[in-house]
Amino acid sequence: MGRTVFLNGEYIDESAAQVSVFDRGFTMADAVYEVTAVLGGKLVDFAGHETRLRRSLRELDMPSPCDTAELLAIHRKLIDLNALADGMIYLQVTRGSSGDRSFYYPAAGTPPTVVLYTQAKSLLDNFKPLRVITLEDLRWARRDIKTVQLLGPSMAKMAAKAAGVDDAWMVDAVGNVTESTSANAYIVADGKIVTRNLTSDILHGITRAAVVRLAKEAALEVEERAFTVDEAKAAQEAFLTSASSFVLPVVEIDGVAIAGSAVGPVTTRMRELYVDAMRASAI
Amino acid sequence: MGRTVFLNGEYIDESAAQVSVFDRGFTMADAVYEVTAVLGGKLVDFAGHETRLRRSLRELDMPSPCDTAELLAIHRKLIDLNALADGMIYLQVTRGSSGDRSFYYPAAGTPPTVVLYTQAKSLLDNFKPLRVITLEDLRWARRDIKTVQLLGPSMAKMAAKAAGVDDAWMVDAVGNVTESTSANAYIVADGKIVTRNLTSDILHGITRAAVVRLAKEAALEVEERAFTVDEAKAAQEAFLTSASSFVLPVVEIDGVAIAGSAVGPVTTRMRELYVDAMRASAI
Repeated sequence: MGRTVFLNGEYIDESAAQVSVFDRGFTMADAVYEVTAVLGGKLVDFAGHETRLRRSLRELDMPSPCDTAELLAIHRKLIDLNALADGMIYLQVTRGSSGDRSFYYPAAGTPPTVVLYTQAKSLLDNFKPLRVITLEDLRWARRDIKTVQLLGPSMAKMAAKAAGVDDAWMVDAVGNVTESTSANAYIVADGKIVTRNLTSDILHGITRAAVVRLAKEAALEVEERAFTVDEAKAAQEAFLTSASSFVLPVVEIDGVAIAGSAVGPVTTRMRELYVDAMRASAI
Repeated sequence: MGRTVFLNGEYIDESAAQVSVFDRGFTMADAVYEVTAVLGGKLVDFAGHETRLRRSLRELDMPSPCDTAELLAIHRKLIDLNALADGMIYLQVTRGSSGDRSFYYPAAGTPPTVVLYTQAKSLLDNFKPLRVITLEDLRWARRDIKTVQLLGPSMAKMAAKAAGVDDAWMVDAVGNVTESTSANAYIVADGKIVTRNLTSDILHGITRAAVVRLAKEAALEVEERAFTVDEAKAAQEAFLTSASSFVLPVVEIDGVAIAGSAVGPVTTRMRELYVDAMRASAI
């Protein structure tokens, strides 16, 4: 017996968690997802992830598979059934299947496929200064919708691994950083935290929203705008944020050490502020 | 009992054809596909589709799931088992699963997921002059790899349906047509057939390759270059090609009638040449 997985209303062993080969999540990447961190058995920023899930569904004209109370209950039951202390809950909703492959969406009323499962991971012990490379951002134009079209970021992660570094920052056609493979990207320049503004060019990170809010509450200046790779290499600090890595320092970009490869004070402070706030508000 | 489907070495009923929710084809769109037409129980341009499949696999560092003889045997057995006269065989290969979700590829030796199934469809009776709209091409930058990241084209097909037309032609950032949602796009201008040149901006259509070759053999001039939406609207003819639609006329673009909405002689000739050549060479 492995993990207990939620699939379309049932709690089943992970080995039995299967979907049809006609499912549009499998044939068309017609699916959205969320990853919610779990700390001490509690959900980190559940409301943020649920709000973004509903936005992704709405942008793709996908019906809601369940209401807030049900979604929260599923998350909590999976934590219980799998005795999850620290880690993540992965959620994926697809448009289901019309029984045959078609570019057209299936008829209204077609049941969506809903799957959630836990991944155990020590989220607080993962602190590590990261080295990154920069790569062309290959993704589609609607990166604000959290779809499973993740082949580009996956290729970038493998390219980073092949280059002997930890991750890759993706770069648009005009030389600006969009984000990291699975995290938002930040630099500290002139004492300000700089992170790309929210458009369809990047994912609207839930961790990003919290970090920007917490920084402002701590009277740190935040500038939401695009920045170039060169600007990043010359920055005082660099870091990234995501639901499962929280805040992690980036100390090298394309072989160039950022501020002598030391973890900077703004990064350290933002990680502390974020972890403290999330511990306090986890439900 | 429904269709008999091939899944990972077995021929099973379609209702039993399921893959793990951890399959990378489901979680990451880490999968490639092909659609091969079947006419009179025979495969149309099998060699072309197999060659492109191998290129897609190679570009993504995916191992080959089987050799040519095996692949052909599976296609033929599915035609037999499902008594398929006219239609398509859909094939999808994914990178399999490492048993948990990760942006990193699974370890070398992880078995790929291989699924093939038939779709019955009358391919020769589908002749219909098409009306299209033009839309921003949302897809990723490696459209030359035939991946299942098909949400953008699927959205475009639905937008076309909502606009009351048959399909959409997708347009790049500088106003040039890339291709149709699931077909290559052509115009006839100054008596020449014009279709976009092969780069990572478009799919390298197997039907496109045959049509370009047959046109040249028939002493028709072919210009492989990008063309604008305005140029298309002012064209003498417009058409599209794909494995399942062969050659179909486009007689209206964004409400503008092409050459008085009549099906032009070049389009008609190319469809005849293609259908005749494919009938003769099907295996």
